Amino acid sequence: MDRYLVISADCHAGPPAELYRDHLDERFRDEFDRHQRSLVELRQAQRVARDNEEFRKGWEAETGGDGGLTAAYDSDVRNGVLDQEGVAAEVLFPDADVLGTGRIAASPFGSGLGGGAGHAPEKALAGAQAHNRWLADFVAQSSERRIGIALVPILHDIDAAVEEIHAAHEMGLGGIMIPTRWFDAPAYHDLRYEPVWQACEELGMPIHTHSGAGPADYGDGPGVMAIYTTEAYWWAARPLWVLLWSGVFERHPGLKYVCAENGAWWAPDILHKSDEKWTGGHNTAKFGNLFREHLKMKPSDYFHRNCYLAASTPGVEDIARRYDVGIGNLLWGNDLPHPEGTFPHTRKWIRERFHDVPVDETRRILGENAADLYRLDRDALTPIADRIGPTVEEVHGAGVGG
Amino acid sequence: MDRYLVISADCHAGPPAELYRDHLDERFRDEFDRHQRSLVELRQAQRVARDNEEFRKGWEAETGGDGGLTAAYDSDVRNGVLDQEGVAAEVLFPDADVLGTGRIAASPFGSGLGGGAGHAPEKALAGAQAHNRWLADFVAQSSERRIGIALVPILHDIDAAVEEIHAAHEMGLGGIMIPTRWFDAPAYHDLRYEPVWQACEELGMPIHTHSGAGPADYGDGPGVMAIYTTEAYWWAARPLWVLLWSGVFERHPGLKYVCAENGAWWAPDILHKSDEKWTGGHNTAKFGNLFREHLKMKPSDYFHRNCYLAASTPGVEDIARRYDVGIGNLLWGNDLPHPEGTFPHTRKWIRERFHDVPVDETRRILGENAADLYRLDRDALTPIADRIGPTVEEVHGAGVGG
Repeated sequence: MDRYLVISADCHAGPPAELYRDHLDERFRDEFDRHQRSLVELRQAQRVARDNEEFRKGWEAETGGDGGLTAAYDSDVRNGVLDQEGVAAEVLFPDADVLGTGRIAASPFGSGLGGGAGHAPEKALAGAQAHNRWLADFVAQSSERRIGIALVPILHDIDAAVEEIHAAHEMGLGGIMIPTRWFDAPAYHDLRYEPVWQACEELGMPIHTHSGAGPADYGDGPGVMAIYTTEAYWWAARPLWVLLWSGVFERHPGLKYVCAENGAWWAPDILHKSDEKWTGGHNTAKFGNLFREHLKMKPSDYFHRNCYLAASTPGVEDIARRYDVGIGNLLWGNDLPHPEGTFPHTRKWIRERFHDVPVDETRRILGENAADLYRLDRDALTPIADRIGPTVEEVHGAGVGG
Repeated sequence: MDRYLVISADCHAGPPAELYRDHLDERFRDEFDRHQRSLVELRQAQRVARDNEEFRKGWEAETGGDGGLTAAYDSDVRNGVLDQEGVAAEVLFPDADVLGTGRIAASPFGSGLGGGAGHAPEKALAGAQAHNRWLADFVAQSSERRIGIALVPILHDIDAAVEEIHAAHEMGLGGIMIPTRWFDAPAYHDLRYEPVWQACEELGMPIHTHSGAGPADYGDGPGVMAIYTTEAYWWAARPLWVLLWSGVFERHPGLKYVCAENGAWWAPDILHKSDEKWTGGHNTAKFGNLFREHLKMKPSDYFHRNCYLAASTPGVEDIARRYDVGIGNLLWGNDLPHPEGTFPHTRKWIRERFHDVPVDETRRILGENAADLYRLDRDALTPIADRIGPTVEEVHGAGVGG
């Protein structure tokens, strides 16, 4: 039976608050307790938490009781879910709980998906280190199926960031996540970040940004959440062209960058427009050589060599535009255990999205691209995929839809 | 002979610095002189100005000597250029000189395309008023062919802004431009701006944003100009969905919003994604009713009723996606006298972009949409179009390309 190797390039893991506490440096624990209490209060006060009680109950019923939250930190439960979903391995980002239930802690001191704003640098680093230590333990319990993404706050102390990248690599983590937004720090084209890109290239640690950090300029007017969700893809995608145009991939040809949980539909237009600027034409003539001075190749060439879009729970457009994105640059994911992910219906979602996609392309997008990117152990993964992966017949066969 | 009524929905006009000075309140003139000197120094120091001397010479030769800059403030020269280009009427934004030659002043105290940053509120208002007074005079010299867009700084004193909107309307100006970015002020979904939307709806003054204001977070790293030009469309488009989601067009069904010089290629995806959120589905289930609470119709319905994209010098994609944008929502422009515009080859550009577009659609996009939006005097315009407009044969006929 021919089965797919499925790797989810966007999943989340994190322990309840008390476990994070144990992984935190002792001097930050009182502060952590205070911050944790305020976080619980904030979450309870949040509009989404107040309004979605009905949704949460439905979600818990649908997922068999806990919305997948135990799988966020219990290794055996996690692998049971993965087997059920047909997923052989997964890439682990922080902040498994976005429901506002207060049951699971966010990565301490805002070092997770919203990283970069609102906390003193040394606290952000301590919070990231606590998560990284916990994550390394979690990965070690099933290292063949888990690619842990270390949190690395790079906005302040570059030396400390580089040190943490090395520590993460030694702990067996497979990549780093940097703050998606730079807030008041210099943007990522600034040369101050060179040591970070250098370290990641040397160690083979792909750099990730993940959607989540909203802009600082939202107020209290109507429609804020709708405005934010409309813009979210762009805030998360911004580092892509900032790194690209500033020549980071020219200076670091081996560096890999992944934009996670952010779709792929937006990329072809941006790449095409960027290539137009680089190639030169009427609209950009007045800028002279400005678009070529840091790039020997056209922008899409760097994208196809160095960049990946981990388009978890891809939409119809993400798949339809796969040739323009690049078959080798598109990763699939199920966003477990976030409720906007496909758990507990991942097999069905894979059928619906990929039933009319050629098998070799499905293979690349569902797992092979990620296996190559993260240099995974095929000997360890193949038996797992052979046991639980969706079959080719199951995905593309007639009469198996619905 | 059947000719098109062509209206450019994105043009620029502004006088040399000394004329602006005359239109400025006396108490701001010393300050203006100081600011003007620093502006000239800044422009001379700018990279683009230093590097594009060769481009500028070529541009001046191509346009017959001055790059269209005299047309920026001389009424007769302006109309001569319009006749030559086949343009019957035009919408006038500020800041005609973007070349950095220092010969023409930008709208005083940064009240023009980059409005909203860096100047004290009362200076921004004084600068805007100086431009508005000059513009009203310029419009009056050929009012049938000119729609003047008043500059209205709305980020600080709302009462003063509303007063200026009324003053602009009384002076014969046809719309207002607000700062494209709100910088440190509340975003445009904030209810504090309601009196502005209310006044514009009452007076039939369309609200405009125009690309130009860059983000505040660029530093000095490599690739800044490439990064900015890649992002420019988005900074200019952002007010669209901020106004839309916050229910501004629900509360003000007669209000019109125009996003100028910003293409149209990006709009279909954004509208489709927004409609998806409003309609509801898996990805947004956890947000409950948040996407519907301020909108009775789906986002694209408001867009098609209230919004316009003045996609000057449209690209192939802008025209190809016209059905998704809406034939009635797309305006053409030639960006005169900016060098990225189509002057002095507008007739050729119109042929190239519209030769295979049906005549009735070409009519709407090239001029009829703008004539309706700005409620122009058809009796005055028709004789002009009959005299100088491109013929249907010229645009669509065989063998007239190139």
